[in-house]
Order: sequence, then structure tokens, then C-alpha cells
Amino acid sequence: MRVVCLAGGVGGAKLAEGLQRGLAPGELTVIVNTGDDLERHSLAICPDQDTVMYTLAGIAGPEGWGLAGETWHVMGALARLGEGTWFHLGDKDIATHLYRTERLRRGERPTEVSLGLCRALGISSQILPMTDESVRTRVRTDDGWLDFQDYFVRLRQAPEVRAVEFAGIERAQATPEVREAFRTADAIVVAPSNPIVSIGPILAVPGIVDEIASARARGVRSVGVSGIVGGKALRGPADRMLASLGDEATALGVARRYAAVALLDAFVMDRIDEALAPTVRALGLQVVVTDTIMNDAAARLRLARDVLAAAGPAA
Amino acid sequence: MRVVCLAGGVGGAKLAEGLQRGLAPGELTVIVNTGDDLERHSLAICPDQDTVMYTLAGIAGPEGWGLAGETWHVMGALARLGEGTWFHLGDKDIATHLYRTERLRRGERPTEVSLGLCRALGISSQILPMTDESVRTRVRTDDGWLDFQDYFVRLRQAPEVRAVEFAGIERAQATPEVREAFRTADAIVVAPSNPIVSIGPILAVPGIVDEIASARARGVRSVGVSGIVGGKALRGPADRMLASLGDEATALGVARRYAAVALLDAFVMDRIDEALAPTVRALGLQVVVTDTIMNDAAARLRLARDVLAAAGPAA
Repeated sequence: MRVVCLAGGVGGAKLAEGLQRGLAPGELTVIVNTGDDLERHSLAICPDQDTVMYTLAGIAGPEGWGLAGETWHVMGALARLGEGTWFHLGDKDIATHLYRTERLRRGERPTEVSLGLCRALGISSQILPMTDESVRTRVRTDDGWLDFQDYFVRLRQAPEVRAVEFAGIERAQATPEVREAFRTADAIVVAPSNPIVSIGPILAVPGIVDEIASARARGVRSVGVSGIVGGKALRGPADRMLASLGDEATALGVARRYAAVALLDAFVMDRIDEALAPTVRALGLQVVVTDTIMNDAAARLRLARDVLAAAGPAA
Repeated sequence: MRVVCLAGGVGGAKLAEGLQRGLAPGELTVIVNTGDDLERHSLAICPDQDTVMYTLAGIAGPEGWGLAGETWHVMGALARLGEGTWFHLGDKDIATHLYRTERLRRGERPTEVSLGLCRALGISSQILPMTDESVRTRVRTDDGWLDFQDYFVRLRQAPEVRAVEFAGIERAQATPEVREAFRTADAIVVAPSNPIVSIGPILAVPGIVDEIASARARGVRSVGVSGIVGGKALRGPADRMLASLGDEATALGVARRYAAVALLDAFVMDRIDEALAPTVRALGLQVVVTDTIMNDAAARLRLARDVLAAAGPAA
């Protein structure tokens, strides 16, 4: 069962890891958001791609991002040289960025670099950047427009977000690899990532919504998972962003966003939100109510199986 | 007494450090060879500049290059990604290269980056790249032309060198900072570095030999130090290179190279080579015979004082 999973960072990575274990090797393709990508210290850094990659390789750090057993000698030395080190990079993580940066400068496409990293790390799944063109998420706060990581990491998501844009999106294209993944998919999964700044950029890439629509027209089912549980984002600012952008900061708010672009057949939400199920059903979505908190490997696999069941032809 | 010192790597760095201690703060300018520079793992690496810089900052590693207390986590991770890591870079050293690479990509000149690093490391001397243009030393071996670090590090200088070229040298120029240093110099010192691939590229930069000649014409003395002692290079392949390129692998061979371009007024050689002194004098050079092996800080300062004495107006 070939599955395409749309994902951002930590939450998406956890579900992707569960899916990888629930499927046969090679059956999972993860399309990752690249709107969070940045250049720091001359390095090409892809936070969502790397979080998914380290998680699928089984080498992610204890908080879900970065690497296990990381050290910080390069950053310490950069700080001693007077460099701003608010975007903290571990030594092993820097090796990934050096590998990537060198290949990009040699002219490889981001997709090729990502697949090379997957092979080097022994990952059986494919991780595909949503596009090979540069897209940069920016958020408007009361103090003006900010680059995403400036808002997300440096300012720790403190400002309210009044608007979001994906700079460069009009020149972006779905890659041949992304199109092929949708065309051969048996199911589409939208991970419990931030619907606005993780899933949003992926859906905004010209061609991707059309590929999803074509797949669904051939009977492929598309299943989304809410990253908002009990009115709170499991991680990150999705709840506050939904509210400040005029949506409801609940699983219903997430479902409405996806229903508005006709993205899903089914929506998976936590038991705690069961009261919202009828309203979500009224949007035309099948609703699956289950445990969505992925605190350990068993929970990831359990949620992945629920999602795969909802996506399967028998669902 | 403002001194301009031409230098390559470890040997040049040691004398430069002695000169720095023997002079008042700010009186020393070191012009470093950039022909050894390379790009690896997307990083702009300047081995001679960094060796001089770390030595003048008092933070060089125990073998004279790299940094004291270095760790190697980034390289270990690059190796696990399948990257060739024959040019081994320490974690703290990589911070220097990230600092440099980012500034170069932003459009700073190499000279500005070098001066920024000197300030960041609290170095009172100026370290100036010989030129801001890219120059790459290449050596011809029996197996063809090799990039310098390919020969020097990867092949550990095993092949015989049949010819040397400085690719890009015809488009290189002496920088305003280098010209100014010569124009305000009270003395010129040629460090005991490899005369062919460390001092050679510096002298080959269009404009530098003319600046030296102009300085000497106004009475500035120029003093060279032999890096060949008892027929052996203290470090590196200078002895074998001199021989394979048809010169004598002795202090005399070095003196002849410098005399051929009218570089020096005086030549400093080791006591062990005293028998060569008359032949060196016959080249028209004042000869200073002294202890030139710089095994410790005291020896560096002692040699620096001998050199400064030979360069002084009273010499």
C-alpha cells in the first residue's frame, strides 16, 4: 500500500515513523514543507526535512528534533567569534547541512540531495521536498513581516501572527518525484502538523492540489489528522495562529481549513474532541475518533494503523 | 618598527608569533599565501591564513596547525554520510570556515574577512591574504596535475613534483591593504616557509615584487630566513621540491631562489649550515648565522630578534 504523507516537523515526523513501521519498506513517501528552510552561517538548513529524516532513521534527539547524542562545539566557537547563534545547530547536524550545501552548490536539485541523504542514512522511505524552488514562509506581526525562523526560533513564537505568506510560491512547481508519488499512491495522509505554516505551504505549491484531486478522483482516499487536541496544539503555535487568523483553535478549525480546499475524505481526531465530531461530519468528512497523542513508539504505530485503516479501500 | 612578514603555514606562523612578541602591538603585518586555499564540504578554507591566525592568537594546536583542544564530531558525522574526509577539519576550525564562507558569500573581500577574524580573536597584528582574487597552486606529478591539497594532504606529498603553477595568478592583484603595508613598512621579513609553494605564490602576485623593490629602494631592508636546515625541510616537502625542480636542497638553494628575484638584503641560516655562508654571501646577501629551529616560544622570540636586528637600520 503506497502512502504519500504530507508533513511538517516533529508531529508529522512521528506519524511518518509510525507509518513507516506499519508499511512494507519503500511504501512510504513523505512530502515535507520547505517553507521553514533557511540559510545560516552559509549553510542550507531544512528543518522539517531533517526532523522527518532523523526520525525515520531512528536517530532523532529526545525532543523530537535534531540528533541524539548531539554536541555543540561548532556553535560555541561561532559564539566566541561574535556570531549570533540563536539558531542553534549541533555538530552532527552541521554535517548534514554541509553535505546538503555542497551538493546544492554543485547543482544538484534539493530533491536529489534529500534522496541522497535518505540513502546515506539507510532510510527505506522517500523524503521529498515539496518543491525544488526556493519558498520562504514569512509571517506578519504587529511589528511587520518576519522570516519564519526569526519568528519561530529567535522570537520563540511570541508575537501574534496577523498574516502568512509563502514568498516565491508562484514560481514553485511540484517536482516530477512529487507528481509521480501522487500518481502511484494508494492513500494520502495529512500529518498532524501545523495546517497554516506546515501543510499550508505544501498545498500552495502549484500542481500539488491538482495531483491530490486527481488521485482522489481515481478513488485514492485522503486522511487528515488533527494536530490540535483539546483546543491546544501539541507543539508549536498552531492554536494561536488559527485564532489570530480568524479560525477556531480546535480540531474543527483544522478540519474546516482542509474541507475548504477539498483535501480530505476522512479526518482523525482525538477522543477528547469527540463532541466536535458531528460538526466535522457535517463538513462532509468521515470522522475517526481515536488516541492521537504519540508519546511513544507504540502510540505512533497505533495511530498510524488507525490512519491506514481510514485510508484503506475497506474504510 | 613596522614589519611586513611574508609567510606560509606552520614555520612562518612560528616566526610571525615571535615577531609579534618582539614588536609593539599593531606593528606586525603578515601577508599570507592563499595558493593553498580550497573549498571542501562547501566551506572556504584558508590553511595558511588560519595557521598564522591561530598561532598569533595563541590558540594553535600542539602540532602547530589547527586549534588546541579540538574535537571532530562534524567530520565523524560526514564520514557516516559517506563523505570523503581526507581533509580533516575540527569542529572549532569549522566555525572559522563558516564565519568566512558566510561573509564571502555576502560579498566581503577575503581581506576584510581576515581582518574581521583577527579582531574577533583579539589579534593585535594584521593578517592579509596576498590577494583578494582566487589563486590555486597546482603541482604536476608523473600522474599529471593535482590541486595542491590533493598532493599535500590526500597524497601526503608522496609524488615527486615536476612543475608548479599558480592558477589564476595573472588575474590577481596586490590589494590596497598589502600595498599600504609595504609602503609604510620599516622592514620586510620572508619567513622560513616553503620558497616554492608558500613564498612563491606571494611573490607571483602582480604588484608585490614591485612594492618590495620600491620599499628596498627607499632603504627598507628585507631579510629572509631559510626553512631548509642541514639539507632538510623542517616541515613539509620543500627539500624534495627544490631537488625535483632542479635546485639544491639546501639553504643555498633557497638563497639562490630569492637572489634570483632580488628579494633580500640579508639571509638568516642555521649554524649547522655555516659552511654555505660564503657562497650565499657571494650572491650579494648579508648572512646571519644563528639558531633557527623554533622548538619553543623562547626560540621563536630569539630568532625573531635576530631577524629584526638584521632588518634594522643599524645592521
